[in-house]
Amino acid sequence: MALADDVLRGEPLALARAISLVENGAPEGRALLDTLSPRAGKALRIGLTGPPGVGKSTTVDELSDLHRSRGEKVGVIAVDPTSPFTGGALLGDRVRMTKAAESDIFVRSMASRGVSGGLSRATQDAADLLDASGRTLILLETVGVGQSEIEISRAADVVIVMLSPESGDGVQAMKSGVLEIADLVAINKADRGGADRLEHDLRTAFELGLRSRKDVPILLTEANTGKGIPELAGAVDALVAARKQSGAFVERRKSNMESRLRRIAEFLLQTDLWESGDSRTRVRAAAERVLAGDQSPYQCARKLLEEALR
Amino acid sequence: MALADDVLRGEPLALARAISLVENGAPEGRALLDTLSPRAGKALRIGLTGPPGVGKSTTVDELSDLHRSRGEKVGVIAVDPTSPFTGGALLGDRVRMTKAAESDIFVRSMASRGVSGGLSRATQDAADLLDASGRTLILLETVGVGQSEIEISRAADVVIVMLSPESGDGVQAMKSGVLEIADLVAINKADRGGADRLEHDLRTAFELGLRSRKDVPILLTEANTGKGIPELAGAVDALVAARKQSGAFVERRKSNMESRLRRIAEFLLQTDLWESGDSRTRVRAAAERVLAGDQSPYQCARKLLEEALR
Repeated sequence: MALADDVLRGEPLALARAISLVENGAPEGRALLDTLSPRAGKALRIGLTGPPGVGKSTTVDELSDLHRSRGEKVGVIAVDPTSPFTGGALLGDRVRMTKAAESDIFVRSMASRGVSGGLSRATQDAADLLDASGRTLILLETVGVGQSEIEISRAADVVIVMLSPESGDGVQAMKSGVLEIADLVAINKADRGGADRLEHDLRTAFELGLRSRKDVPILLTEANTGKGIPELAGAVDALVAARKQSGAFVERRKSNMESRLRRIAEFLLQTDLWESGDSRTRVRAAAERVLAGDQSPYQCARKLLEEALR
Repeated sequence: MALADDVLRGEPLALARAISLVENGAPEGRALLDTLSPRAGKALRIGLTGPPGVGKSTTVDELSDLHRSRGEKVGVIAVDPTSPFTGGALLGDRVRMTKAAESDIFVRSMASRGVSGGLSRATQDAADLLDASGRTLILLETVGVGQSEIEISRAADVVIVMLSPESGDGVQAMKSGVLEIADLVAINKADRGGADRLEHDLRTAFELGLRSRKDVPILLTEANTGKGIPELAGAVDALVAARKQSGAFVERRKSNMESRLRRIAEFLLQTDLWESGDSRTRVRAAAERVLAGDQSPYQCARKLLEEALR
């Protein structure tokens, strides 16, 4: 496939087109992934989440620049679960795209509307494409609302949770459960008052409530000046190295892949299997049997599943 | 099964226990449904939705009383997608339960937290139990936020959308798309100013934007005094009679049952099939094959689906 070859050569326009295809759940997108997913797996995938306004984009930019200067090829996927827009058409993206064009960093935003089968499926597919295209570092950025941060944690090797000393982020974070997915915490805007206090509170929360996470590194950053960013990158590197040593890195990839496979299977059921003409006829006949009192809904549903896959 | 017999006899405590079992997705709940669902299908299921504070509970109470006085046996399921509480333990429920105890109206609230496989699945299962227990009218009440009103429309024969002249309900309703599921609209608090204006705006919206719905009856009600409630009940009766005549009533039941069967099938996949020991082993092995670059995720997921059902 010509498009697949162009993606493998790392051409940005081919990559952009390929991501659109997988985003829509199009058959061409799946054919592409069948070719390209086996070529993925080399890139490190870092998830980055936090409340709106905490400085995620700035941190992603700084991290991207840092790694690029070290010779890495960086790709960014910005996931906005609250936006109906998709495909890199946002103003913020255009600004970032300009910077990206100068620096060979590929930036893509994805939004939930119009994504078939869930943002998580599409995000992981897009990460595979970036990976196959030769990107060595993939940053997955999402605003921490609802489920999106859980999804990012299933797509990433390492998750950085960002908080700021402002506006009760810490309390919110403890209540929302986002700390449970944190492999590292970055307290951004550390120059504002309250960063030490927040660090102390988080430390206490990890010690008391989340003992399995009591060694989570907490870093202080000022993304808008770049202060603390090399230390954050270093902490990620150290964590990854330790996990590769212990086997935890591969273990997490496996468990992420397991949940990905289940989600894809459910997506295939919803799109391919239920939508075939045969299946529609069978579902309708089953509905009639249940309404006639001949069978129970659970018995019928089980049978439908079996028939759909025969 | 003793519990099934007690439900069939209409015993409120057995019914409450049975609903808890199906709510949790417990195997006993499914066994109960296998016995009891074929005994369901006689009751009329009316969905009632609208924004918070519009007067849904009061309207449900008034409709319940009215139908009870006509010899109907009424069951109410109040679905709260925003509440973490379930099982009728809310203060509002206790108040309503008192009234219910006096009047033989069975009231049950269901909340999303802790409901396995989605509120829609559990709501429809609970409605089957109420139906099998001899209730002849089932009122499904839900606050119109997010997806819950769509789910109620898939569980109901007829949906009443409630609005009030206050606080921009009409504009919100037009924007949110809730009018698309309305079989009837009740403008409650019709004694407050603006009811005529809202009726006119809705009429225009139906004529211009939703022509397939241009004959949707719009009723004026004052639930707290009972004014307009008999007319609302009459409009529902007339609609149901017309649809039974035309065949639309049965057609909707079929299409509701089709989507119910698909949802149950997906629920079974998530609970039974993925969770068996065999399946876990297979999913893990598949994840390893994908990570080794031997297979693509979509190919593997498809195979997993087939194997899960073999």
